[in-house]
Amino acid sequence: MISILIEKIKKTNAPICVGLDPMLDYLPSHLLNKAIEEEGEVNLKAVANAVLDYNKAIIDATCDLIPSVKPQIAMYEQFGIPGLKAFKKTVAYAQKKGLVVIGDIKRGDIGSTSAAYATGHIGKITVNGTTLSTFNEDIVTVNPYLGTDGVKPFIDTCNEFNKGIFVLVKTSNKSSGEFQDKVLTETGKPLYETVGAMVNEWAEMSMDGEYSNVGAVVGATYPEMGEVLRKIMPKSYILVPGYGAQGGKGSDLKPFFNADGLGAIVNSSRGIIAAYKQEKYAKYGEKNFAEAAREAVIAMQKDIIEGAGL
Amino acid sequence: MISILIEKIKKTNAPICVGLDPMLDYLPSHLLNKAIEEEGEVNLKAVANAVLDYNKAIIDATCDLIPSVKPQIAMYEQFGIPGLKAFKKTVAYAQKKGLVVIGDIKRGDIGSTSAAYATGHIGKITVNGTTLSTFNEDIVTVNPYLGTDGVKPFIDTCNEFNKGIFVLVKTSNKSSGEFQDKVLTETGKPLYETVGAMVNEWAEMSMDGEYSNVGAVVGATYPEMGEVLRKIMPKSYILVPGYGAQGGKGSDLKPFFNADGLGAIVNSSRGIIAAYKQEKYAKYGEKNFAEAAREAVIAMQKDIIEGAGL
Repeated sequence: MISILIEKIKKTNAPICVGLDPMLDYLPSHLLNKAIEEEGEVNLKAVANAVLDYNKAIIDATCDLIPSVKPQIAMYEQFGIPGLKAFKKTVAYAQKKGLVVIGDIKRGDIGSTSAAYATGHIGKITVNGTTLSTFNEDIVTVNPYLGTDGVKPFIDTCNEFNKGIFVLVKTSNKSSGEFQDKVLTETGKPLYETVGAMVNEWAEMSMDGEYSNVGAVVGATYPEMGEVLRKIMPKSYILVPGYGAQGGKGSDLKPFFNADGLGAIVNSSRGIIAAYKQEKYAKYGEKNFAEAAREAVIAMQKDIIEGAGL
Repeated sequence: MISILIEKIKKTNAPICVGLDPMLDYLPSHLLNKAIEEEGEVNLKAVANAVLDYNKAIIDATCDLIPSVKPQIAMYEQFGIPGLKAFKKTVAYAQKKGLVVIGDIKRGDIGSTSAAYATGHIGKITVNGTTLSTFNEDIVTVNPYLGTDGVKPFIDTCNEFNKGIFVLVKTSNKSSGEFQDKVLTETGKPLYETVGAMVNEWAEMSMDGEYSNVGAVVGATYPEMGEVLRKIMPKSYILVPGYGAQGGKGSDLKPFFNADGLGAIVNSSRGIIAAYKQEKYAKYGEKNFAEAAREAVIAMQKDIIEGAGL
């Protein structure tokens, strides 16, 4: 799978994914009102329909510029079953438009349970000889707290169905250091380096060309740590959240890339899908949110290519 | 919420939750075949319908003996949207039968995303002034890898809606030590103790009588660590997985309880819901899986009360 993502990154010259995280506040009111009118009342199906319209418009307006999108499943799960239907439809729609879909699900559990998550998101399930597909993302994010037997079932599923994972190593949020930065007696180094070293071992289990289907998540907000982790996991793509709204800048991103100009893909959610709310893009207005998103993608691509010296 | 759970534990004298983890292998064939026949084909809806029938029968057969059930959402997510509908209906059915429902979801993300998960599972969402409910579990499990700002939104939601969480501290699986057991330079002690100490701080933010709505997950497979963690988190209920099929025995459980005989709730999944597959309960046969589950609950309750000296 990673070779497919790399091909699309090269083609667009944009190591970018657009985070499709439809918070209620971002939903343009005309979409929500139309959906409520169609439903005849305020209900979860109306919200989910508005979310899907919103996503489709953003995908349509940006799909020629980008290799991938990253829907954050929490933003759909908050709208219950209708929300998860919108998630599934968003995945399928983005794939139809040629995008690699990274499901930001951060799942992780004991072995048999991780296997069930892997089946549901990047695998298929066989019932009485019939094979059925469920959410069908291309890549998903995975939480490593439970260790190898929580991650291995995802890797097995990657190998069976040509899919990928990004394992959380150093997250972009403020309090990520509370546990991830603790220095270990064994190594004299922070926990995230040990997690990174494990990712490098796991990466060997699913190579796809020069890179592995097993990547890592490292926040743009911690470029010094990104530099260290880049070296610890040379074969792993790094998914970099925290750009834009969370504070990461293009010039912070250089350490996340390898010398070949590859090795990282940068996510922006709010900065793209809610660009219409920024003063910079105010001229578009709420109605033209998708055009604002397109212009924000163009600006982001330029900032990253220049900032990271690619 | 924890005071409601404690009341039910006292009433049943059973610090137990039954893990409703419907793996495909456990589903009695007559239920699956009936559901496939009704659907006219093998599809996810058929599997999900069989799962719901299975769960309802087990709930009916055990609800007078136990305070709570713990559906593992991965086992539903693997069946896609129909599976998640069965999850939601299972939650509602168990609550109707008077049980506290612990959604084993192990979610955890950056702040705004954790807030969305909390809303979807233990909160409510307000859209244009209308308040809507989604999955509506009573308690959920939470992954702490992202630190306080990944956990705090769940605690806020607990306080707003009188709900609870169990935070992963030391999980029951074999490789849980890979990261959780690493000794920290700062304390000279394993990471799980630092996570436990944070749980104790978080617990203060949502007290409900003698105990907190913020509990912890510690595996029955690690009783010595359980003993240490019990002291570090005196106000937190401990959800103890790993009993039975994973190797934990009643006599291993004593360290997880406080001197008041409270403070722990032990989960068994396979050992109860697939009891009919054990030689011990073979006399029931597959058709009477629910009666086998009931007898397994009775045996488990006795083993825990005696083994833990309660």
